[in-house]
Amino acid sequence: MPFRLSMPRKPPTGSEFDTVIIGAGPAGMSAALYAARLGLKSIIIGEEIGGALTEAGEVDDYPGLIGVQGPDLAKKFEQHIRKYRVPIVRDKVVRVEKGSSFKVTLMGGETYVSKTVIVAVGSRRRKLGVPGENEFSGKGVTYCAPCDAPLFKGKVTAVVGGGNAALQAALLMTVYSPKVYLIHRRDEFRAFPVYIKKVRSDPRIELVLNAEVRRIGGSKSVEWVDVLRKDIGEEFRLSVEGVIIEIGSEPPKDFLKSMGLRLDEKGYVVVGPGQETNIDGVFAAGDCTAGPHKKKFDQVVTAVAEGAVAALSAYEYVTLGKGLPAEELQY
Amino acid sequence: MPFRLSMPRKPPTGSEFDTVIIGAGPAGMSAALYAARLGLKSIIIGEEIGGALTEAGEVDDYPGLIGVQGPDLAKKFEQHIRKYRVPIVRDKVVRVEKGSSFKVTLMGGETYVSKTVIVAVGSRRRKLGVPGENEFSGKGVTYCAPCDAPLFKGKVTAVVGGGNAALQAALLMTVYSPKVYLIHRRDEFRAFPVYIKKVRSDPRIELVLNAEVRRIGGSKSVEWVDVLRKDIGEEFRLSVEGVIIEIGSEPPKDFLKSMGLRLDEKGYVVVGPGQETNIDGVFAAGDCTAGPHKKKFDQVVTAVAEGAVAALSAYEYVTLGKGLPAEELQY
Repeated sequence: MPFRLSMPRKPPTGSEFDTVIIGAGPAGMSAALYAARLGLKSIIIGEEIGGALTEAGEVDDYPGLIGVQGPDLAKKFEQHIRKYRVPIVRDKVVRVEKGSSFKVTLMGGETYVSKTVIVAVGSRRRKLGVPGENEFSGKGVTYCAPCDAPLFKGKVTAVVGGGNAALQAALLMTVYSPKVYLIHRRDEFRAFPVYIKKVRSDPRIELVLNAEVRRIGGSKSVEWVDVLRKDIGEEFRLSVEGVIIEIGSEPPKDFLKSMGLRLDEKGYVVVGPGQETNIDGVFAAGDCTAGPHKKKFDQVVTAVAEGAVAALSAYEYVTLGKGLPAEELQY
Repeated sequence: MPFRLSMPRKPPTGSEFDTVIIGAGPAGMSAALYAARLGLKSIIIGEEIGGALTEAGEVDDYPGLIGVQGPDLAKKFEQHIRKYRVPIVRDKVVRVEKGSSFKVTLMGGETYVSKTVIVAVGSRRRKLGVPGENEFSGKGVTYCAPCDAPLFKGKVTAVVGGGNAALQAALLMTVYSPKVYLIHRRDEFRAFPVYIKKVRSDPRIELVLNAEVRRIGGSKSVEWVDVLRKDIGEEFRLSVEGVIIEIGSEPPKDFLKSMGLRLDEKGYVVVGPGQETNIDGVFAAGDCTAGPHKKKFDQVVTAVAEGAVAALSAYEYVTLGKGLPAEELQY
């Protein structure tokens, strides 16, 4: 269900801010809430209000809100920051330039000036691109095993992928599923030996190797997945009620690179403990971030916490300047 | 308002768990939610269900729940984990011993056996110990400037303390308060020079040095604070509507030490990116933790996120063993 609160007019070009938040998902909206409470003049610019939540089904791991629908949770976040009158602009940031302050240019043509920038642009789960995948998304097809595993209690499922995340997902699914197919297009996994050993020795996991998913189908929700065994050239239909696709995710690398941000090998923004990046005055939060200081676990709760910390760091930067190393800026 | 949901019977002594969670505040309850969803057999043991939330007034910085009362938020968390049938036991853990697994002994005498332990025991804000302090707690007296600053919009306030947290609090209060007294018992601050310079040069901040708070008073909420100027031996009454006490906080050091946990110089448990501690199989989350991998910002959102990450780490420990270094256990 799409929703829309009344949008404020876009601030006029040339408007000045303490912080411009790029991205309107959980991380960006939490950053806005905290920034506003810390007295920063803030604005959110996002392409999709709600970010990844707009595509989520039931979210039951945001403590305190039992079984809320993704878009409804996004709406609650939005209402919360509207209380603090933070403008939310639906547009795309095309360019961020650093001078004595930051100049942020929107696709719509406006340019804003800001002392700090908080990057919370998220990442997109990679898709298989097969028939039925989009149709059954949230109806048995999921891209996040830890988020949705409990929904598949007692149901046969298939996990697609061959890396660490896929193998971890298969192992997690065995907690709920009586049988888990692990479908991988190669005949070897690219994962840590401990995971490979575990999935190979678990009788609840059936390996389907050299296999390509061709289509996902069912009536109201997923009932089967068709796979092509490439080594023998035959197609099989597996009866499953869930397809967990774990073939990686992609932050918007090109945009992040264009800002001059330091990225890790997968394209995530490398952040420190205060969500600081390699650029003075730029902070990042949520799914688009990674690095040695955080264990990557892309959840609504972790995005929201990182948004809060990024806002605090931006507040300190605006009020105290950049003279102190991060470890000395601790409450 | 105290609340009580029906408590389950305590599991019998000798019961075995995948994870025992010590502490029933936001971090512990979030850890329980995630542990349950990850299929771990879990239990929470806490002295106060809700932890620091039980003493909080309005919480308006938990995104999605606008202006919720602290105890009500605690109740929502509790209801959420009861959905997953995690037992919550109201008792005190007196001892944790490590053998091939952990033996957790309660004050009530029961002993539980667990593969992992998640420590989420929180920390207590230090109190002044003066008349009126408890009476007006949540009615103008607060121990967390970033949490409550917006409540004091347009109101004269006093910040008590002389360290970094107090000076940061005074600077933050100037966003909302037309005038901020900064009351400190010494005549010099123990804080970073940048903070000292800022508070000394801010015309909205009036320093009240060599001064001891004697009592806090008012009718329904705070109206004044009495301070004794020790250098001149005179007592003054300052008209304020808020008293922000920032004189540090204390985790339960003795208990943490008895577990063999590595603590920092202030007594907080040092954690890594996965909330792991120096003890294999023991994870920690929330206000009782610190360390170089986190920026310490004790908020409900950060506690909840750390609880989730701790649960994931415990899940990995239980299912995969301890063979992999933390940085290789990333989703």
